[in-house]
Amino acid sequence: MARVFNFCAGPAVMPEEALLEAQRQLFDFNGSGMSIMEMSHRGKEYDAVHTEAIANLRQLMAVPDEYSILLLQGGASGQFAMVPMNLLRPGETADFVNSGAWASKAIKEAKIVGAVNVIANTGKDIPTRLPAVADLKPTPGAAYLHITSNETIAGTQWKSFPKTGAPLIADMSSDILSRPFDVKDFGLFYAGAQKNLGPSGLAVVVIRKDLIERCPETVPMFLRYKTHAEENSLYNTPPTFGIYMLMLSTRWLLKMGGIAGIARQNEAKAAKIYAAIDGSGGYYRGTAVPEFRSNMNVTWRLPDEAREEKFIKEASAKGLKGLKGHRSVGGIRASIYNAFPPAGIDALVAIMKDFQAANG
Amino acid sequence: MARVFNFCAGPAVMPEEALLEAQRQLFDFNGSGMSIMEMSHRGKEYDAVHTEAIANLRQLMAVPDEYSILLLQGGASGQFAMVPMNLLRPGETADFVNSGAWASKAIKEAKIVGAVNVIANTGKDIPTRLPAVADLKPTPGAAYLHITSNETIAGTQWKSFPKTGAPLIADMSSDILSRPFDVKDFGLFYAGAQKNLGPSGLAVVVIRKDLIERCPETVPMFLRYKTHAEENSLYNTPPTFGIYMLMLSTRWLLKMGGIAGIARQNEAKAAKIYAAIDGSGGYYRGTAVPEFRSNMNVTWRLPDEAREEKFIKEASAKGLKGLKGHRSVGGIRASIYNAFPPAGIDALVAIMKDFQAANG
Repeated sequence: MARVFNFCAGPAVMPEEALLEAQRQLFDFNGSGMSIMEMSHRGKEYDAVHTEAIANLRQLMAVPDEYSILLLQGGASGQFAMVPMNLLRPGETADFVNSGAWASKAIKEAKIVGAVNVIANTGKDIPTRLPAVADLKPTPGAAYLHITSNETIAGTQWKSFPKTGAPLIADMSSDILSRPFDVKDFGLFYAGAQKNLGPSGLAVVVIRKDLIERCPETVPMFLRYKTHAEENSLYNTPPTFGIYMLMLSTRWLLKMGGIAGIARQNEAKAAKIYAAIDGSGGYYRGTAVPEFRSNMNVTWRLPDEAREEKFIKEASAKGLKGLKGHRSVGGIRASIYNAFPPAGIDALVAIMKDFQAANG
Repeated sequence: MARVFNFCAGPAVMPEEALLEAQRQLFDFNGSGMSIMEMSHRGKEYDAVHTEAIANLRQLMAVPDEYSILLLQGGASGQFAMVPMNLLRPGETADFVNSGAWASKAIKEAKIVGAVNVIANTGKDIPTRLPAVADLKPTPGAAYLHITSNETIAGTQWKSFPKTGAPLIADMSSDILSRPFDVKDFGLFYAGAQKNLGPSGLAVVVIRKDLIERCPETVPMFLRYKTHAEENSLYNTPPTFGIYMLMLSTRWLLKMGGIAGIARQNEAKAAKIYAAIDGSGGYYRGTAVPEFRSNMNVTWRLPDEAREEKFIKEASAKGLKGLKGHRSVGGIRASIYNAFPPAGIDALVAIMKDFQAANG
């Protein structure tokens, strides 16, 4: 069995050792005679998994006590609805930055719930970019400011975060756990699991405890952060297998040196591809403005679409899968999340050089 | 490795061959060089899984074309909110039958959304029971009537369903796919996956297409059935691994003879335990009124709590796990979903006889 290099944008590559451990235990978890999938979520075996997953997240991101960590369902799309339902009350305005496809979905959903002010919009700019933090003009008294820390499609990433009076809320689906940041700069951040955390079907939410109380009583119990915070994410049956994979992935990340360790590796991985782009004499052109280049999703173009297609096809034949860029920006996209192995970067860079030599 | 007999109420036992197949393929799905968890939900490998899962459900339950099958997140608790958000509009009333713990949660959630009329309430009756269908007095013009087809905690199960003018909606979490019924008797039914369908973190919703259009525009996109129906449950990243397990479980069920085949087995399994209860000369006493006895969750008492505790402990030592009844009804509960093997029933009945002989 040959393992490919998986550049998929999400669901995405997971740590090999997490997958192998899950495989070993799938039919009989820790000698219990049951799969982890078959166990009560109120039993002690699962409880240990649940507790470790949350503890690992708290340790990795140094989440202070005044924040709750919630393990929910519905991915980031669920949060696009839950955030305004819980935090945008009648008469209030929420600020949003539209930085691309994902921010724009969050905005669309929030507008159904309440008043939204899009204070910056780089969503359709090509080359893809983000607004300068200094240029943002928040609405006085806004309920919160929502940003998307990394735009998977555009390949852009906030390198520093806005500081405003209102709570800062970030969709970190595609770069959570990939680099250091101070949790205290945020009121809430969330991530669908399927890039850096585990399989799809799980969302991690980190919320400052005072914000938990904001939710109007017109919101169903299931959709209130308060409900899940009070029950340690066991109000209803959680996605136990997804949380088990989150536990294994975060355990792996701790062994990799935590956020500091993986951030160095992520920086080095991305830098190699960007160096190959910038060193190609214009043959490869980065899709994102350099100062906003993402370390998770590297996007670039070739001289024409025919060669882009050929590049993707040849790379795929060599076991480099999922390199096709999203149709809205075109070209190539290499999604290189935490679990993407450095050897795959070297393989990609070698192919880029060979391809240019043969098709220059 | 010894496989135990898993009587857990949910998450619950899954088909062994589904688990073994998932284990074989976990690190390399069909020779792709990736886990199913690592694959794009827009790719052809996953698409085949998604399509087969839905097709299997449609075949097993003979779901007519005028119904959509949706694969959502949030389990049944999510549906407690989504059903009224989508189908209970301002000025309308929804009828509910309170038959126990699960119905009561659905009612609590619906009351936050709109007007609710509880037209029958057997929720706290001991012995546990259901109202007679003939005694139900629906509200004229009600938006729908909601029932819980099987109460996991009480061990009661509707043997025939009410016929009313309003659409009938059922939470079938604990008995979906376990017995024949006519889909056309329902406007909508739903089930959390973790009893008869697959792992937790997935909900199956079957909805008559005209009802999809009812949702008010004040409801966020993510929480509208319409959104998911229009995108074949690919509006956002679905819980791909859970759907894969659903596909394997339903494939197994088709091999078992479909609903007709499994219903015969389920009937026979439950009948053996009820016969052991009824043949014990009053030593064991069924918790549910006989006419409402569930074939999925068999509940009974012993002469006193001390012997109940001893029974559970001795059964556990012999590899029969999860027999403790829910604290609200006490005693013993044997959850014997589709995938629970008949051999486990024989083992339980043998223990019941031995225990009575030793502790009579």
